[in-house]
Amino acid sequence: MLSPKQRVFIEAGRKEFVRNGYGSSSIRTIAQEAGVSLSALYYHYKNKQDLLLAILLDGVDTYDAVCDAELARAGDDPVEQIRAFVKGNVIFRTQFPEQGRMIATEVRNLEPEGARLYEERRRAGRRRIRDIIDRGVAQGVFTTKYPDDCRRSILAMVSAIANWYDPAGPDGPDEIAERYADLSLALLCPTITGGEGDSR
Amino acid sequence: MLSPKQRVFIEAGRKEFVRNGYGSSSIRTIAQEAGVSLSALYYHYKNKQDLLLAILLDGVDTYDAVCDAELARAGDDPVEQIRAFVKGNVIFRTQFPEQGRMIATEVRNLEPEGARLYEERRRAGRRRIRDIIDRGVAQGVFTTKYPDDCRRSILAMVSAIANWYDPAGPDGPDEIAERYADLSLALLCPTITGGEGDSR
Repeated sequence: MLSPKQRVFIEAGRKEFVRNGYGSSSIRTIAQEAGVSLSALYYHYKNKQDLLLAILLDGVDTYDAVCDAELARAGDDPVEQIRAFVKGNVIFRTQFPEQGRMIATEVRNLEPEGARLYEERRRAGRRRIRDIIDRGVAQGVFTTKYPDDCRRSILAMVSAIANWYDPAGPDGPDEIAERYADLSLALLCPTITGGEGDSR
Repeated sequence: MLSPKQRVFIEAGRKEFVRNGYGSSSIRTIAQEAGVSLSALYYHYKNKQDLLLAILLDGVDTYDAVCDAELARAGDDPVEQIRAFVKGNVIFRTQFPEQGRMIATEVRNLEPEGARLYEERRRAGRRRIRDIIDRGVAQGVFTTKYPDDCRRSILAMVSAIANWYDPAGPDGPDEIAERYADLSLALLCPTITGGEGDSR
């Protein structure tokens, strides 16, 4: 969907925003980084805010594409779908760290109109895991008493991988994805439902 | 440890940083907010960076105090200690949302010297859950194959509570703490260790 020129602007903007944060970033530096004049940049994005929104939506596109590719390979089994969903998330966090970081730290700098657009896109994406969990609960495969908290926890767990993942470290995305799929399923299928909580 | 005056500066600074982000925040506005002259503020904090560090360390102090108060009430049982640790974290995220938000978003704006100091303090704090999990694993109470990932996941899960917690919502900190303790123990004590992963 993005033209090659837009892609250059988005890469340059992301680089600058990740380095300096939105507030301290300069649209002039971004134009320089992209190797174009300021007016050429303004031709495509009317201001820094407009570029921020484009960068964040591009991040969501990447996330969606990676998750959907994994889910397309999984069958109908909610357990396999959770594994695929977690794998997509691990790939996003490990292979696209700057996109992930933008989403983690710069969404709050969106102005209301952009925030609304962004939130709409994210909500559609979050439906993915919600649907899988709902189906697993309905089929009795997921026995958790707290499906909403499981959904939020799984998203938080996989997002946090970005904080410690080291591309030069011993574990590749595949191993990490396996472990986090196991952990996600431990949340969704606790055999002692509620643990010690049952005794309260 | 903080003087009443320092407390006023820290509250005013936190308010401004949470509202505008560090990069776009003005030390002048913070002085106004605190009801003092700019030179009075500079008497205590030599610049915006110095104030940022003080605010973040104050956040860590609050976090430590809340966790330690809960842990002091728990006995030696690693299961009860995990419940207490999770409860402390839930209290921090729900009762001190701005402190939590500063930690989540502004640590990256610390300059190297401050970042080093801050990291040292955080590392000491993280030892808390690491020790509990190590002890639980050594005693055979926690059967997880992935204690490091459990630790990171528990921290991520409880931190994310800040994203959706609504003080006017149906669930208070106590109910949320119970649920997240159950979820944390589901990670640490998976009865089917490794879930479907065993079949690979």
